[in-house]
Amino acid sequence: MNNKLILCIQVDEQTQLRLLEERHVEDYFALIERNREHLHEWVNVEAYEGSIETLRAYLKQRLLQFVNGEGYHLGIWYQGTLVGILDYRLNWRSRNVELGYWLDASLQGKGIVTRACRTMVQHAFEEHKLHKIVISCAINNPRSRSVAERLGFLQEGILRQVGRLHDRYVDVVFYGLLASEWNSEAGPVDEASL
Amino acid sequence: MNNKLILCIQVDEQTQLRLLEERHVEDYFALIERNREHLHEWVNVEAYEGSIETLRAYLKQRLLQFVNGEGYHLGIWYQGTLVGILDYRLNWRSRNVELGYWLDASLQGKGIVTRACRTMVQHAFEEHKLHKIVISCAINNPRSRSVAERLGFLQEGILRQVGRLHDRYVDVVFYGLLASEWNSEAGPVDEASL
Amino acid sequence: MNNKLILCIQVDEQTQLRLLEERHVEDYFALIERNREHLHEWVNVEAYEGSIETLRAYLKQRLLQFVNGEGYHLGIWYQGTLVGILDYRLNWRSRNVELGYWLDASLQGKGIVTRACRTMVQHAFEEHKLHKIVISCAINNPRSRSVAERLGFLQEGILRQVGRLHDRYVDVVFYGLLASEWNSEAGPVDEASL
Amino acid sequence: MNNKLILCIQVDEQTQLRLLEERHVEDYFALIERNREHLHEWVNVEAYEGSIETLRAYLKQRLLQFVNGEGYHLGIWYQGTLVGILDYRLNWRSRNVELGYWLDASLQGKGIVTRACRTMVQHAFEEHKLHKIVISCAINNPRSRSVAERLGFLQEGILRQVGRLHDRYVDVVFYGLLASEWNSEAGPVDEASL
Amino acid sequence: MNNKLILCIQVDEQTQLRLLEERHVEDYFALIERNREHLHEWVNVEAYEGSIETLRAYLKQRLLQFVNGEGYHLGIWYQGTLVGILDYRLNWRSRNVELGYWLDASLQGKGIVTRACRTMVQHAFEEHKLHKIVISCAINNPRSRSVAERLGFLQEGILRQVGRLHDRYVDVVFYGLLASEWNSEAGPVDEASL
Amino acid sequence: MNNKLILCIQVDEQTQLRLLEERHVEDYFALIERNREHLHEWVNVEAYEGSIETLRAYLKQRLLQFVNGEGYHLGIWYQGTLVGILDYRLNWRSRNVELGYWLDASLQGKGIVTRACRTMVQHAFEEHKLHKIVISCAINNPRSRSVAERLGFLQEGILRQVGRLHDRYVDVVFYGLLASEWNSEAGPVDEASL
Repeated sequence: MNNKLILCIQVDEQTQLRLLEERHVEDYFALIERNREHLHEWVNVEAYEGSIETLRAYLKQRLLQFVNGEGYHLGIWYQGTLVGILDYRLNWRSRNVELGYWLDASLQGKGIVTRACRTMVQHAFEEHKLHKIVISCAINNPRSRSVAERLGFLQEGILRQVGRLHDRYVDVVFYGLLASEWNSEAGPVDEASL
Repeated sequence: MNNKLILCIQVDEQTQLRLLEERHVEDYFALIERNREHLHEWVNVEAYEGSIETLRAYLKQRLLQFVNGEGYHLGIWYQGTLVGILDYRLNWRSRNVELGYWLDASLQGKGIVTRACRTMVQHAFEEHKLHKIVISCAINNPRSRSVAERLGFLQEGILRQVGRLHDRYVDVVFYGLLASEWNSEAGPVDEASL
Repeated sequence: MNNKLILCIQVDEQTQLRLLEERHVEDYFALIERNREHLHEWVNVEAYEGSIETLRAYLKQRLLQFVNGEGYHLGIWYQGTLVGILDYRLNWRSRNVELGYWLDASLQGKGIVTRACRTMVQHAFEEHKLHKIVISCAINNPRSRSVAERLGFLQEGILRQVGRLHDRYVDVVFYGLLASEWNSEAGPVDEASL
Repeated sequence: MNNKLILCIQVDEQTQLRLLEERHVEDYFALIERNREHLHEWVNVEAYEGSIETLRAYLKQRLLQFVNGEGYHLGIWYQGTLVGILDYRLNWRSRNVELGYWLDASLQGKGIVTRACRTMVQHAFEEHKLHKIVISCAINNPRSRSVAERLGFLQEGILRQVGRLHDRYVDVVFYGLLASEWNSEAGPVDEASL
Repeated sequence: MNNKLILCIQVDEQTQLRLLEERHVEDYFALIERNREHLHEWVNVEAYEGSIETLRAYLKQRLLQFVNGEGYHLGIWYQGTLVGILDYRLNWRSRNVELGYWLDASLQGKGIVTRACRTMVQHAFEEHKLHKIVISCAINNPRSRSVAERLGFLQEGILRQVGRLHDRYVDVVFYGLLASEWNSEAGPVDEASL
Repeated sequence: MNNKLILCIQVDEQTQLRLLEERHVEDYFALIERNREHLHEWVNVEAYEGSIETLRAYLKQRLLQFVNGEGYHLGIWYQGTLVGILDYRLNWRSRNVELGYWLDASLQGKGIVTRACRTMVQHAFEEHKLHKIVISCAINNPRSRSVAERLGFLQEGILRQVGRLHDRYVDVVFYGLLASEWNSEAGPVDEASL
């Protein structure tokens, strides 16, 4: 397979990050459908609860944020299929970025998200010359937390009941990585599972 | 003085919170001018560094956020004069609000901001029925921190170098107050100084 | 009841004027529903004939007029309930404002609208420093006319068939009050009924 | 001269009404320049006081009103030259229209405006099927008043100090003509002067 | 019939070109309905396939193009009825315009479109001072081609399969007429049929 | 050099196509500056004649076209430097795309543009599943023409004086390539010079 012709950030031979465009809306909606239960428990995006037209409007709004230099709403493609989402939300004023992500339940445990995030960490520090990267997630979500931990992020604080997942409030743990702490030559990290 | 005719949230006999409108731009700009040094050190709002036209555009943009239900950009009026800013940034999805504030240097120590924030805390829990209120500020800004502390907010975490003030990155301390922790009948708090 | 925490113009102990926000749409729609017959006869606002979504869009558009400095679309709250509408339409260029109003049929005769209008007259001359206030209404609507008359407005002219109420054209009477005619110290006016 | 190829409302052999487009801005600005003194005394349009860029923005805004069905901002062309303005401001809800106009000082007294207005009166009643036409002008502007009077409009009222001309407030006289009063077969009116 | 009161470009006694406004949407939709089969075969406008609301949005968008100086979306009125469309798409940067057109099937063969296009050719060269006029149509549409040919346009090239009509790709023939080739005094052209 | 972390379409080891974002505006403006003479002769983009702020607005407008699915405004990066532009203008309705391009004068003759275009041809047919690709350029621009010719495009027609380059009108030659004519397995083309 020759992937050269696609607008993407290449993570590895099998994995690509692509800007989600309106034409991807069917694939995106199908991905949400396959993971509804999982998303209901862990992810809070209002547009995920609506119709495909709601999702289309959301995609367009996120692309407009890209136009305004506020980051990327990326799809994770694995072996040619859309399997997850990686959000990269820039704050140029403070020179930091927040990463958010979720993966199709059937592909967890392969390290796909960890590798994708490592690529975007490198992008943040080398291409965008940022000062800090932030990851935050529900405190009782070990999979999400392990991504930050494997990439060497430091746990900085737990904000009480600041996240809301449909029917409950959750404590959110914040991780941070400073440019001064990043070593792109770092050896391989264990990517056994996500 | 009969103040009944003004659109405001009445804090006490001498203090009112008002939505900042375009027609207040001269007063707002003058307030910034009087506090430039102070602001340069502690407050990071891009519009404060520009002309009065830049500030006017900022005011309009903040009013549009009000229209969209994203909160209030309030001026603090004390004895009939605009003396400070109180930002009330709503997040309906998570049912929380973030408070931000700054006061004319010449009026600090009178408890004006603390009283204004207590009013908005009450507003958040009673009028908007929110779940949590957040205050964050630079770790080495004792005046700002004491507002949160006097109102009974709990310190929850310190995010490293996540704020940027012109020439340096600062650690930011996060305080939180849950609806369940608020008792509007609470006795008087010491408001000696801000 | 402590009302200090609400963004409003306080008319008297029991009455407040508040900017109508999107979150008030259910209350607003219910008020219209309760008064449909009455409104059909006397008030011509296209949005009142549509669904709650139409009304929501109207609220947003009116808030945008506030952002642009074109006046206030105010709700009248009486004893904590939305009971009427007071429109305050600014014309800065000519330095005048036009007042419009309607009240829940079940609360007429208590002087609520007259008191609310007196507050806004004071606001127009003292806070906005306007030159003139205009009230216009259908010639055969004695309740509306009496509000203007009690507040000391002068009848200036009758424009023929310039208003349209659903199924008929009506003559509209115009009242005016100049800043030079206003005496805020004026003794009490009879507010027996509206 | 063959004028067939122009988008216009033909008033007579020598006079045409045309939608003012952005490309007419130089001619429009020159017309204002030639009549600055006259306009200062009788016409209050904020855009007339600014640069040609201000006028261009005004033109665009008026064209957007046309797109929204709110009427026409027409130029009066006489013998191929732009010599005046005729505003036709629709209110579909009340099925009326307001006419406004001004003419190059050097061309007054030829009946140009009266003929142009008669054409638009006919347009209002026959093409737009409106119910009423309104003309209002400063009470002490005999030329403007005579246009309404010659066309058979009835004087309906005088609103005190409701208009503002730069340095003073003026009483404004309102004239009206109902569809039932219009007879398109009416014989010639005296058009001696405007 | 006195047509003077209509905003139009007069083609001949019986034919007028008018800017299509939102209020014409019913007539426009009816015209499309009457010609659905014909349009399906020869015209590719997405909005023609939707509801009247889709067409209304299209009309508004085309009027916005007029506001931006990008040309006219004209209706052809014949004996007082809307019978066809004439698109005049300006490219000021290259100083050319592209004409497009279609006519109610029942009125073909009367030369209506040819005369309307000749008027717009004159408009393009005399009023807009353009350099070139372009007409393009499907190669196997002899009626459309004959309009260009009768007006003296030169065939310049055939672009393969560049047009798409619902279920097939069609070769498109391009015709051009330069200002230098236009002679407005030219004698009558045979307009036997379109 | 590890380029994996950049959002791009990889052409070959040394060449990448990237969506031009607002943050690239300095590099883009410098590229224009270096090629002003060349551009003046061959390229007609109004924004190239203005200030860097004009170019910034142009970049944003082109990104908005991307958001609307109307194609890509790509920069050509060669050995890490922005050296040219490749426009990819989609017409989904007709399922075709038009390619446009220009290269820094100092890098011509290396086949950079030809390789970049071949990549986008492949993208058009394989990723976007289009039916046809169009290239058009001034007839007397042999470098531009040779790109189309080397990639196997067929010359389809010459439109007279349809392009405008600052001070003159030019004949434009149109080339086309149909999906049915494309063989991605095709052997190497001679890329000696551009």
